[in-house]
Amino acid sequence: MELSERVASFASSVGALTYRRIEELVSGRPAELYEASMHLVRAGGKRLRPLLVVLSSRMYGLSPEVSSWAAAAVEILHNFTLVHDDIIDRDDFRRGVPTVHKVWGEGLAIVAGDLLFAKSYEALLKLLDYGVSHERVASAIRELTWAAVTVAEGQAMDILFVSRERVAVEEYIEMVRKKTAGLFKSSILIGSIIAGAPEEDLVKLSEFATDVGIAFQIRDDELGLVADEKVLGKPKYSDLREGKKTLLVLYALERADERQRRKILSSLGRPGATREELEEVAKTIAELGALEYSNKLAEEFVRRGIEALYSTNPRDPDSREMLKELAYYVTRRLY
Amino acid sequence: MELSERVASFASSVGALTYRRIEELVSGRPAELYEASMHLVRAGGKRLRPLLVVLSSRMYGLSPEVSSWAAAAVEILHNFTLVHDDIIDRDDFRRGVPTVHKVWGEGLAIVAGDLLFAKSYEALLKLLDYGVSHERVASAIRELTWAAVTVAEGQAMDILFVSRERVAVEEYIEMVRKKTAGLFKSSILIGSIIAGAPEEDLVKLSEFATDVGIAFQIRDDELGLVADEKVLGKPKYSDLREGKKTLLVLYALERADERQRRKILSSLGRPGATREELEEVAKTIAELGALEYSNKLAEEFVRRGIEALYSTNPRDPDSREMLKELAYYVTRRLY
Repeated sequence: MELSERVASFASSVGALTYRRIEELVSGRPAELYEASMHLVRAGGKRLRPLLVVLSSRMYGLSPEVSSWAAAAVEILHNFTLVHDDIIDRDDFRRGVPTVHKVWGEGLAIVAGDLLFAKSYEALLKLLDYGVSHERVASAIRELTWAAVTVAEGQAMDILFVSRERVAVEEYIEMVRKKTAGLFKSSILIGSIIAGAPEEDLVKLSEFATDVGIAFQIRDDELGLVADEKVLGKPKYSDLREGKKTLLVLYALERADERQRRKILSSLGRPGATREELEEVAKTIAELGALEYSNKLAEEFVRRGIEALYSTNPRDPDSREMLKELAYYVTRRLY
Repeated sequence: MELSERVASFASSVGALTYRRIEELVSGRPAELYEASMHLVRAGGKRLRPLLVVLSSRMYGLSPEVSSWAAAAVEILHNFTLVHDDIIDRDDFRRGVPTVHKVWGEGLAIVAGDLLFAKSYEALLKLLDYGVSHERVASAIRELTWAAVTVAEGQAMDILFVSRERVAVEEYIEMVRKKTAGLFKSSILIGSIIAGAPEEDLVKLSEFATDVGIAFQIRDDELGLVADEKVLGKPKYSDLREGKKTLLVLYALERADERQRRKILSSLGRPGATREELEEVAKTIAELGALEYSNKLAEEFVRRGIEALYSTNPRDPDSREMLKELAYYVTRRLY
């Protein structure tokens, strides 16, 4: 599924504006540090989170001119987590380019991530110059901080799951709720808070963003198994090689007979596994119906999320329409 | 030099209160992540930065009951940088205990540092519950963010210097101004800002803290060469082994004859250098008068800093007295 021309064009203008904000914020010396920090930002990405910020702000009447600073904040925070994740997972490629630590070394990559983290707060503080009140900016900072804590907890769970024998599907959902949906939720909340959305809408929007975030991660796991390597921008099956307990793996392990179970476990998390062996594992997972299952689950999350979204009272229903389209796109995207 | 009993006792009560704040803030799940995050905090440390916060707040009438949250913020931020520094420098010991990545692995250590970073903002947001205004909390957040950016820049310079042939003393001072003095400065500013210090005093206090921070790092470099390993809590000469361009090394290289220069460079930054070889390098550095030079420079920074400190107009001069004693202690401490 592709986005409609209208939403795609809006998304592209938000992406460009957010990029300009980030470029302005993330510049300085030493040059190597700032180059390293901007590396993944320059490489692109879907810039979905900025869109969540700008659209939820727009729902309550705040212009992208202002909200783009908050959009920059969440996109910078997201990029910080990617830089550190790539070190942790020892990934060599992302967004079609070598990862930061592959180019600048691990030490500078750790520091580049830290710098981005700090810069995400600088981005939110910019809102004060655009007339957003100290109270609202403080609330936005609270949400960003909550997201950073939550993402760290989810990331730690993800790491700890690798060496655990059994992980329940509920634990996976809990991990994803933190690791991925945490920043989706805070993106929506930051956008709506700085625009002055009513308290009761914040609750609904949180539900919407959390559900869509979970669906997004489920789809992400699927794409690691089925997507074309070129659009993926990184090697296929890296999750399998790293021993990640994705929903697909968990579902397949639950349903596998002894032979299938042995086949999956013999290659999962083994750095030396060949492409063919991983291909075999992916085939087994697919044969066990994991993709149908995860697809259905993702669709269910999105359905529930949209229900919450439509119990809000926005000033601008058009922005809500676009958020709905985005939510559908998230589970059906091809990369 | 040891602190006077009065200041030592005040420092110890501030340290304990700050520790309680941190314990309250840094708790949650998964347990491994929070254990890893609290590891270095539990191991102790001098807790100098909390003292800078609490004393500068007290100078303008704000009680430790409130300012201890800000003290927790800077101490948490400091610990975050230590966790990441130890990974970058591949250090095995700090504060007499194995470093975080040695115990929990590198992946979890990176995330533990990230978590601490986020928690430092949570600590500042706590001030809102204690009646500090949104405006002042926003300013404190701005200072903390400035420090985090500045420390990252300094840390990057430190990394980049290792592989550079020549580094000027001025460049070293610039690096230290960022890497170490940045957080000293923001500690003093955060403390005085939340207490409502007048604008003109903020400038003076910045100068004081920056100068003392630079002196602190110069003394730190010295101690790596001359201190007793037991009180140091980490292996002696690790700076030399890692090829760090400390003030002592830079001074010695500038004054060394060809033979001395070759001796220093043959072991500096060589992971396989023996204890005896590093001992020889340290002796050569000392013979060239590097310690006298760096001592004098540190004293000069402190003298200038205290001059700035005494051009302020505090409500409570007693706190200023204690800050002065601390500043002297910083350059004369034995560990």
